[in-house]
Amino acid sequence: MSTTAATDLIFGLTRVVGLPALTERAGAPLAAEDIAQIVEEADRFCREVLQPDAMAADRAGAVYANGTVTTPPSYPAAYAKWVEGGWQSLSAPVDHGGQGLPAALWTAMVELGMAADASFMLGPLLTAGAIDCLHHYATPDQAARWLPRMVSGEWTGAMCLTEPGAGSDLGALKTRAEPLPGGRYALHGQKIFITWGEHDCTDNIVYLVLARLPDAPPGSKGISLFAATKVKEDGTRNALRCGGIEKKLGIHGSPTCVMLFEGAEAELVGEPHRGLHAMFAMMNNARLGVGTQGVAHGAAALRLAEAYAAERVQGGRPIAQHPDVARMLMEMRAVTLAARLLALETASCVDRHVLLGEEAAQTRLALLTPILKAWGTDRGVETASTGVQVHGGMGFIEDAGAAQVLRDARIAPIYEGTNGIQAIDLLVRKVAKDGGAEMRALLAEVRALPDARLRAAAEALERATATVLEAQGRDADAGQAVAVAYLDAAGWVLGGWMLARAAAAAPETYGAIADFYLRRLLPRATGRAAEIEGALAA
Amino acid sequence: MSTTAATDLIFGLTRVVGLPALTERAGAPLAAEDIAQIVEEADRFCREVLQPDAMAADRAGAVYANGTVTTPPSYPAAYAKWVEGGWQSLSAPVDHGGQGLPAALWTAMVELGMAADASFMLGPLLTAGAIDCLHHYATPDQAARWLPRMVSGEWTGAMCLTEPGAGSDLGALKTRAEPLPGGRYALHGQKIFITWGEHDCTDNIVYLVLARLPDAPPGSKGISLFAATKVKEDGTRNALRCGGIEKKLGIHGSPTCVMLFEGAEAELVGEPHRGLHAMFAMMNNARLGVGTQGVAHGAAALRLAEAYAAERVQGGRPIAQHPDVARMLMEMRAVTLAARLLALETASCVDRHVLLGEEAAQTRLALLTPILKAWGTDRGVETASTGVQVHGGMGFIEDAGAAQVLRDARIAPIYEGTNGIQAIDLLVRKVAKDGGAEMRALLAEVRALPDARLRAAAEALERATATVLEAQGRDADAGQAVAVAYLDAAGWVLGGWMLARAAAAAPETYGAIADFYLRRLLPRATGRAAEIEGALAA
Repeated sequence: MSTTAATDLIFGLTRVVGLPALTERAGAPLAAEDIAQIVEEADRFCREVLQPDAMAADRAGAVYANGTVTTPPSYPAAYAKWVEGGWQSLSAPVDHGGQGLPAALWTAMVELGMAADASFMLGPLLTAGAIDCLHHYATPDQAARWLPRMVSGEWTGAMCLTEPGAGSDLGALKTRAEPLPGGRYALHGQKIFITWGEHDCTDNIVYLVLARLPDAPPGSKGISLFAATKVKEDGTRNALRCGGIEKKLGIHGSPTCVMLFEGAEAELVGEPHRGLHAMFAMMNNARLGVGTQGVAHGAAALRLAEAYAAERVQGGRPIAQHPDVARMLMEMRAVTLAARLLALETASCVDRHVLLGEEAAQTRLALLTPILKAWGTDRGVETASTGVQVHGGMGFIEDAGAAQVLRDARIAPIYEGTNGIQAIDLLVRKVAKDGGAEMRALLAEVRALPDARLRAAAEALERATATVLEAQGRDADAGQAVAVAYLDAAGWVLGGWMLARAAAAAPETYGAIADFYLRRLLPRATGRAAEIEGALAA
Repeated sequence: MSTTAATDLIFGLTRVVGLPALTERAGAPLAAEDIAQIVEEADRFCREVLQPDAMAADRAGAVYANGTVTTPPSYPAAYAKWVEGGWQSLSAPVDHGGQGLPAALWTAMVELGMAADASFMLGPLLTAGAIDCLHHYATPDQAARWLPRMVSGEWTGAMCLTEPGAGSDLGALKTRAEPLPGGRYALHGQKIFITWGEHDCTDNIVYLVLARLPDAPPGSKGISLFAATKVKEDGTRNALRCGGIEKKLGIHGSPTCVMLFEGAEAELVGEPHRGLHAMFAMMNNARLGVGTQGVAHGAAALRLAEAYAAERVQGGRPIAQHPDVARMLMEMRAVTLAARLLALETASCVDRHVLLGEEAAQTRLALLTPILKAWGTDRGVETASTGVQVHGGMGFIEDAGAAQVLRDARIAPIYEGTNGIQAIDLLVRKVAKDGGAEMRALLAEVRALPDARLRAAAEALERATATVLEAQGRDADAGQAVAVAYLDAAGWVLGGWMLARAAAAAPETYGAIADFYLRRLLPRATGRAAEIEGALAA
């Protein structure tokens, strides 16, 4: 039986990660019907406002000329509807005009929006990240001046981290912040790969910029966080501008900007030299968003592939009935659903931490986040590629749309920390840090489910955990060389865990897809565990 | 130790598949030095003539206007050099002006050309397929009129099979052939996805067209093969034209044409109603060419990734020295080399059959071809994607070139029979047909090598063979639903076999890469075998 993304999301939120009970404990109960209504409205918005123009937006692309960026023709009006619908405020802090709804609901919105038009949805996603950062690190005065207009969507936010010589290694960045009279700073430097760094959908943009103070120590301990606005409070333009946009493989509608800071007035956010700390604190949420984007690419690919396979007849029957095409569609469904539920599980950790104050939830969040980000986005690319394959020759033709999904999906394993960086984060900062304790606790939950296949895979992963920890302690390079395999194994196990839970909650709807996954896809976990043992064998 | 594609090809031809001994037995000995010289010249041609303009050719793309197609600006001159160098004639039949060199050498040329500019090389590859077909099925008179000019490259060839309603199911095609006085025919119909169907590099094009005679039985038994030329023998244009070209994900320089046959004069090639038979007889060679294309995409991705990783510094050292980047580069090298050697092994079966008359070689060729085509092209896409990942954010920027390789690579699992079709061909027409005998014979050769890991993987594949044969006999749909997993398992085992043979021949050069593959990549074969057992378990 086939379900839609929206029905899966409602089911996952209500019956798998238990949002009604969670919110009730938090004293702000959201009933299953409330959740269903919000998700259905979000789905309608995405299907009616974003999706119809997504292909045309890709064709038009963002266009740069003389420092200005014109987004695709449909974007300014769609963005106005986004603001009008109050969608940006969904899970934003109540203190600044937000609705304060759970992060798990925002995650559902992100998936639906990204599946409808990833290029568009990147603007709101980056704004949400900037809101989150300022909510934690801005002074009350700063927050009052910036946040209400970001939460409403009237202004967008942009994160300015990367520089030509500083990508994965942010410690190498060179942008300078020179003190100005009155406690302000002038920013000088060049930032690249700035998503939605310049556009025509709002009058103002808030830039969060990593830069060095004059007395900063070298490396990553000398980086501070600043905020600058495109238009200053006196209504004049700040000394920053877009120097160009990138010609990219995908997400053509999303302007990826070179941003030039030429003495732009800025304010320090948080403590001096603690900018990377502030960024890292925000990263779990940003990475949760990108992992969810991976789910969305899978969902978009599946939507197109299912429609094509139902309609395209070869050999006297729709190709959806050909065994190998049916297998491809099942793989796409099973992997996408597994990743979707894992995204909700990860987001619910944010909610358990923020709404219920559970410290344990933050530890779990820290463990799940790199797995979701990397495994979810790798699966997004893979599922998008399978979607192309289902279309046969038409998959290679841009008109069919499947190729666009693949082009758009390919960025997600790269940005917000490459998937290799995620794997090292998992191994070094999460698993090695506590000697594997939280991973073992998680795997104990997996093993507690009554499925022998899942239990065996969890045991293989537990052995691999011991192996990589031993390697990491003995020879860090050897450990890091298997980090991606280790993360991938964990992703396949956790995907099976989520589907087994879904099947337990609603066997008639999710039993078959869970069984497919456990029979056919879970062996990839044990394959990866075998790879780790092989790589590290004497 | 890192080697180049050309040195690997020379090593593979001379030391792994044993072309010097094979040609000596055939009475036309090619010494190792001859082979090295030809491959080095081919490599020089590709690096000097094709590669420098490949990115600009992608940007310019093929352009359609009023029935004419303009290829990228560099192509006509590059094509002229291709003809001048005599490259088209390399392995073409001596009777028609060819050099009659082994298919394995042509395979090396195809890899090098495809890695330099896949869009360009598709023209010569399709011409080679048409030459092969006409060499086998044309009358001596037909051959004399067409083949010398195709062998020289003065004319190109195009294969016209697919129609809007007839892709994987060619039996559904509708193009009609009406008898004309004098034994000729008038073709009426529309063909799509015709590679190099129209272009400006030669004055004439020979079209091989599948169509139905008036008295044809329905389905695949009523299809005949015809040949039509763009310019007729009297110098006038034939009644066929290009109706447009596709806007595609990749291979932008290669015109993918809609061809309209509006009463075009044509000749029957071979027997009436035996057109599909003629096409299938040619398919092994065409699929060998596309499998080799997969190798080439991996090689192109590796070339770019190695250069970038050596030069890009993060954290104080080139990223090539970061353990996970080093792991990605090793995977790219190991997989590409394994696929390269498997392509040469497959091509050498052609040579053993054609030059030595070994019937057994044809059976082996039939078994290896779908594996090479599907496993080789899947690995090509995967390696191209890994190449993007090595570049980090730059991988997504078109200027870096890595994205183009991925775009170009994505067609290869689709055309010349989708990889799903290859898997079913392997299972049904090859393995099931002889009860698994040839596969077992092949695996006995694999098991004979002194590596315990390889032997275990071969045994797992042998058990999987029994399992899929049993399933195929009991429930054909169940068998076909695991066909792709089965082919993939076979590919990983055979890749290991080729690398183990390379390591045995030159342990100092290829021992480390073979060991990496056997430790880290071979477990994918056992993972796939476990998937098959899981899928078919009660």
